[in-house]
Amino acid sequence: MDSTRIVEIASAVDPDLAKRLEFLLEIDKLKSVMRRSRLIDGSRDENTAEHSWHLAVAVLVLAPHADEEVDVVRAMEILLIHDLVEIDAGDTYIYDSAGRADKAAREERAAERIFNLLPPEQAARIDELWREYEARATPTARFAYAIDRLQPLLLNAGSDGWSWRRNGIRHSQAEAVNRAIGLASGPLWEVASTLLARCAAEGSLTDDRDAASGAEPVAPDGR
Amino acid sequence: MDSTRIVEIASAVDPDLAKRLEFLLEIDKLKSVMRRSRLIDGSRDENTAEHSWHLAVAVLVLAPHADEEVDVVRAMEILLIHDLVEIDAGDTYIYDSAGRADKAAREERAAERIFNLLPPEQAARIDELWREYEARATPTARFAYAIDRLQPLLLNAGSDGWSWRRNGIRHSQAEAVNRAIGLASGPLWEVASTLLARCAAEGSLTDDRDAASGAEPVAPDGR
Repeated sequence: MDSTRIVEIASAVDPDLAKRLEFLLEIDKLKSVMRRSRLIDGSRDENTAEHSWHLAVAVLVLAPHADEEVDVVRAMEILLIHDLVEIDAGDTYIYDSAGRADKAAREERAAERIFNLLPPEQAARIDELWREYEARATPTARFAYAIDRLQPLLLNAGSDGWSWRRNGIRHSQAEAVNRAIGLASGPLWEVASTLLARCAAEGSLTDDRDAASGAEPVAPDGR
Repeated sequence: MDSTRIVEIASAVDPDLAKRLEFLLEIDKLKSVMRRSRLIDGSRDENTAEHSWHLAVAVLVLAPHADEEVDVVRAMEILLIHDLVEIDAGDTYIYDSAGRADKAAREERAAERIFNLLPPEQAARIDELWREYEARATPTARFAYAIDRLQPLLLNAGSDGWSWRRNGIRHSQAEAVNRAIGLASGPLWEVASTLLARCAAEGSLTDDRDAASGAEPVAPDGR
């Protein structure tokens, strides 16, 4: 039976429960939103649902390395829901500056539609978590963002720069994009920046001196 | 570079941080553990990492329907880590009674290895969450388990019983396996049992009267 029928059946029991199930059935689609990161075993690209799981576990485990006091549970909740908007808006590659121009508008429309499948109180709560994340104005949001930057960096380092190489990313670009890790955690940024330097030395990232001497960086394929 | 090298680099900054990264690199493998459920869009089977994400969001959203008082954050943490043992032990199909015989022993060994990649305090914490889940002795663990049963039921209902049909599951078997939902939530079980009955009527589950009249249920493929 289709999702509409499932929701109808639930609605006869409890209309709010039906709304929650409609939301849960809808977000199954996040498992089909593909990211640019490769799994460490090199078998395939990562999808956004499993990425969100990895981040939620990472924030639990790495919380002791936050520089400021962080609400770990809130950070975990933020990371579980922060990419739901990609169901409609797609994953915008962090190095795709053209795609990033209208990212905010696309994601606003997506948030409006997807969060409001839930009963109003829960929709408002998820919207609040998402906006806190997007604003990066709290230590919790900044730490969540640091984890969201660190995880793909680890996957890239562990897969010999699969996604960086495929998209011709330069060392300086990777440093610029990931520097936000240092706004939330000194030690995590120390590890991350050392990894970036090693990856550049090994050719997983394009060395900026090579790029400057004529090698044209490959433009990330736009969305 | 391989994971060992990443962990070495991190170890020069902070040995505990290095252990946490080793754990996070290791659990990337959960994205390659395949389950028997089909995504609702029918495109492919679900993996255990994205399943865990779906459950963590589901517990947040469905918490108002718990019959007893539940520690929602703890349930979310439990569901994020409850299947990590499958990295070594594999996913045992709920209807595979032969595979379930040595499931506990396989999972014990897996927990020992995987959790202990973390510093001792965090390893103990994750072990505690996992054991609470396995024992089902608290309202929180029972509700987490109910969510872990409800989600594949929704995927099955939404994909016209893809996994049930592939494995010849009977209505009475699905009822027996999912009845635990009712130990944690009356309304969720009311919806779930209605869905099962509808799925049996539509042929997504084998009707027990048909099974009794001679049609042999297909044995789930063992692991």
